[in-house]
Amino acid sequence: METNEKEKIFSQLRKDLVSGTWVIYSTERKKRPDFLKEEAVKKESAEDLKKCPFCKKNILDQEEDVLVYLKNNKDWSLKVFPNKFPALCSDYKNINSREHGPFEVIDGVGYHEVLVTEDHQKDIPEMEIERVAEIIDAYQDRYLALMNRKHIKYISIFKNYGREAGASIKHPHSQIIAMPVIDPDVFRSLSGSENYYKSHLECVHCAMIEWEKESSKRIVFENEEFMAICPFVSRVPFEMRIYPKRHVSYFERITDEQKMELAEAMKFCLSKLKKNLNDPAYNLFLHTAPCNGQVYDHYHWHFEIFPKTNTWAGLELSTGIEVCSIIPERAATILRE
Amino acid sequence: METNEKEKIFSQLRKDLVSGTWVIYSTERKKRPDFLKEEAVKKESAEDLKKCPFCKKNILDQEEDVLVYLKNNKDWSLKVFPNKFPALCSDYKNINSREHGPFEVIDGVGYHEVLVTEDHQKDIPEMEIERVAEIIDAYQDRYLALMNRKHIKYISIFKNYGREAGASIKHPHSQIIAMPVIDPDVFRSLSGSENYYKSHLECVHCAMIEWEKESSKRIVFENEEFMAICPFVSRVPFEMRIYPKRHVSYFERITDEQKMELAEAMKFCLSKLKKNLNDPAYNLFLHTAPCNGQVYDHYHWHFEIFPKTNTWAGLELSTGIEVCSIIPERAATILRE
Repeated sequence: METNEKEKIFSQLRKDLVSGTWVIYSTERKKRPDFLKEEAVKKESAEDLKKCPFCKKNILDQEEDVLVYLKNNKDWSLKVFPNKFPALCSDYKNINSREHGPFEVIDGVGYHEVLVTEDHQKDIPEMEIERVAEIIDAYQDRYLALMNRKHIKYISIFKNYGREAGASIKHPHSQIIAMPVIDPDVFRSLSGSENYYKSHLECVHCAMIEWEKESSKRIVFENEEFMAICPFVSRVPFEMRIYPKRHVSYFERITDEQKMELAEAMKFCLSKLKKNLNDPAYNLFLHTAPCNGQVYDHYHWHFEIFPKTNTWAGLELSTGIEVCSIIPERAATILRE
Repeated sequence: METNEKEKIFSQLRKDLVSGTWVIYSTERKKRPDFLKEEAVKKESAEDLKKCPFCKKNILDQEEDVLVYLKNNKDWSLKVFPNKFPALCSDYKNINSREHGPFEVIDGVGYHEVLVTEDHQKDIPEMEIERVAEIIDAYQDRYLALMNRKHIKYISIFKNYGREAGASIKHPHSQIIAMPVIDPDVFRSLSGSENYYKSHLECVHCAMIEWEKESSKRIVFENEEFMAICPFVSRVPFEMRIYPKRHVSYFERITDEQKMELAEAMKFCLSKLKKNLNDPAYNLFLHTAPCNGQVYDHYHWHFEIFPKTNTWAGLELSTGIEVCSIIPERAATILRE
C-alpha cells in the first residue's frame, strides 16, 4: 500500500439509501481489473524483507511521524505516521455534503494512520509485555489526539494480521482511522446496549461477563482487570473478546496499570491462536463509545479478535446470518490448552 | 461438504444480546483445528472430476430429490435435493426456544437444499438462456414449496462461485435455505424501504432505477423487464444488482416471460464478470420480501452479484463501513465493454 510517489487523493463517502450504511471510495489506485486475482500467499524471502517499507522507516528524522517512542537516544521502538494511501484524507477542509440524485455524498474527511513497531520479525506473541503495553499506550495517545478534531465522530483502531485478513504488508502494524460518520452497525450496537440498560438497569456486557464467570466454559484468559472469552454468540470460529471486567465505556480512559494487564491478555490470546491453531490470519479491533460528543455511559469498551477461518459466502452476505462450524465452548477449550 | 455417512446433525441458533443478530451453529464436522489453513486453489484434475459428488448424482432414481427437471425421457437437466451437511435441519419438529443465561437459543429448524445443473463444465455464462431460465424457475418452485412450511420466515437463495466465495464444490450449483428467523440486517433493509416509502410516497428502489436510467453511467445491461447496474453505493468493486424495472415486492410472483428476461440479464452480467475481469469468484443472491405472513408491498425484489475482490478487514468488521477502491461509474464502464 506504500509507494514513494504522491498522488492526488480522492476520497468520497456515499450513504446507502436503504440501509443507511456508508461506503468509502478512496484513491483510485493505478490497478488493472486483473488485480482481482490475488497473489498466492508467499513465504517472505530475504529480498522481500529488504524491500519492507516499514523497516525503511527505521530512521528517526521523519517529518511526517505523528508519534515516536524512543527506546534509547537514537532508536525508536514504535512510531505512528499517516498512511500513504489513506481511505480518508485530512486535506479536505470541509465535509462538503451534497446530493447526487436521491443519494447523500460527502467528502472523505478524516485521518488514516499506521502504527509500526521496530522489529519486522516480532509481533505481539513474540514481544515482551511492556512492548505490547506500549502499543496500547500509543492507541490511547492517538485516540486522544484525534477525538476532538473537526468533523471526527468515530475512531476505529485495528490490526490486520496475514494476507487473508487484509494485511498487505507483513511488518507488524496497526491502523487508526478517524471518521466523519458513524455507521448504522455501530449505532445498532450502541442502541442494543442502551435498550438492555433501560430494561434491565444493568450493562449488557457486564451481565455477559458475570454469566461467563459463573459458567466458565468459554473463558480463555483472566487476570485482575480483564477477561478474554469466546463469546456465546461467536460470529466466526475461535472469535475472542477481551473485556475490562469493570464497567468503562470509553477506551481512552484506560490507566497505565490496565494497559499492562490488557497487554498480558492480548499476548496470551494471540499466542494461543498462533500456537494452537497453526498461525491463522486474524483481525483485532477495538469497540468503544463514539467521540461525537454524546454520552454513551451504557457502553462497555472491548477488543475483538476475529480469526480468518470462514469465508463469508452467499448466506452471510444476503441475510446477515453467519454459519459457524465450531461452538464457542469447544473453541475456548482448544484455545486454553 | 458431502460425504456418504449420515451423522447426527446438530443445529442451533443463538441470538446476539447487543445487535440482535443470529448465528447458526451447525453440525460439528470432524475437523481438526488446522482446518483453518485453507488449501490453495487448485486446477481441477481429471481425477477430481471423477470424484465430483454432484456428477455422481447423474442418475434419476434418487429418493431424496425434491425437484427434477427432465430434458428427455431419461436424462435430467436440473435437480434439487437436501444438503448432506445442512446449516439447518428439518428433523426438528419444534423450534424449542430456551434461555441460556441472558441469551436466547432456538433449535436450527429449517431446510437447506442444493440445486445442481447437469453439466459440470457449463455454468451460467456458458449455458443457453433457456437453461438459465430453468434455474430461475426452480428457485421459484422451491420458494413456493417452502414458504408456507411451519416456522419458516425467510428464504435465502444464493450461488457461491469459486473457492474464495465459499464454494467447496466446483460443479455449478445454488443453495436454498429456509430459515426460522429474520436477521436485523434484513429488517433494516425492509424498514429502510418502508421509511422512504412513507416520506416520499414512492418505492426507494423505483426511485434509484429511475435515477440510474436518467444518468445511465452505472447501467451494465437493460432489457424490457430488467436493469442491471453497478449501484451508486456499491459495497465491493464491481458489485451489480439486477432489478425488475416494474415494482414487484415478491420474487415468487415472477412470470415465465420475466424468467427469460432475467436469465438474459443474469447471463450477460456473469459473462462480463468472467471475461472482462479474469473470472473472479463471486456470490449471487436474491433479496426479496420475507415469507413470515406480513405485507411488504414497499419492498422491491432483486438479485445482487458480489465479486470477491476486497478482503473485509479490521475496518469493515469493526465499523460496518466498507472501503472500495473503484468507483461504481468506472466499474460499470469496464463491465459494459
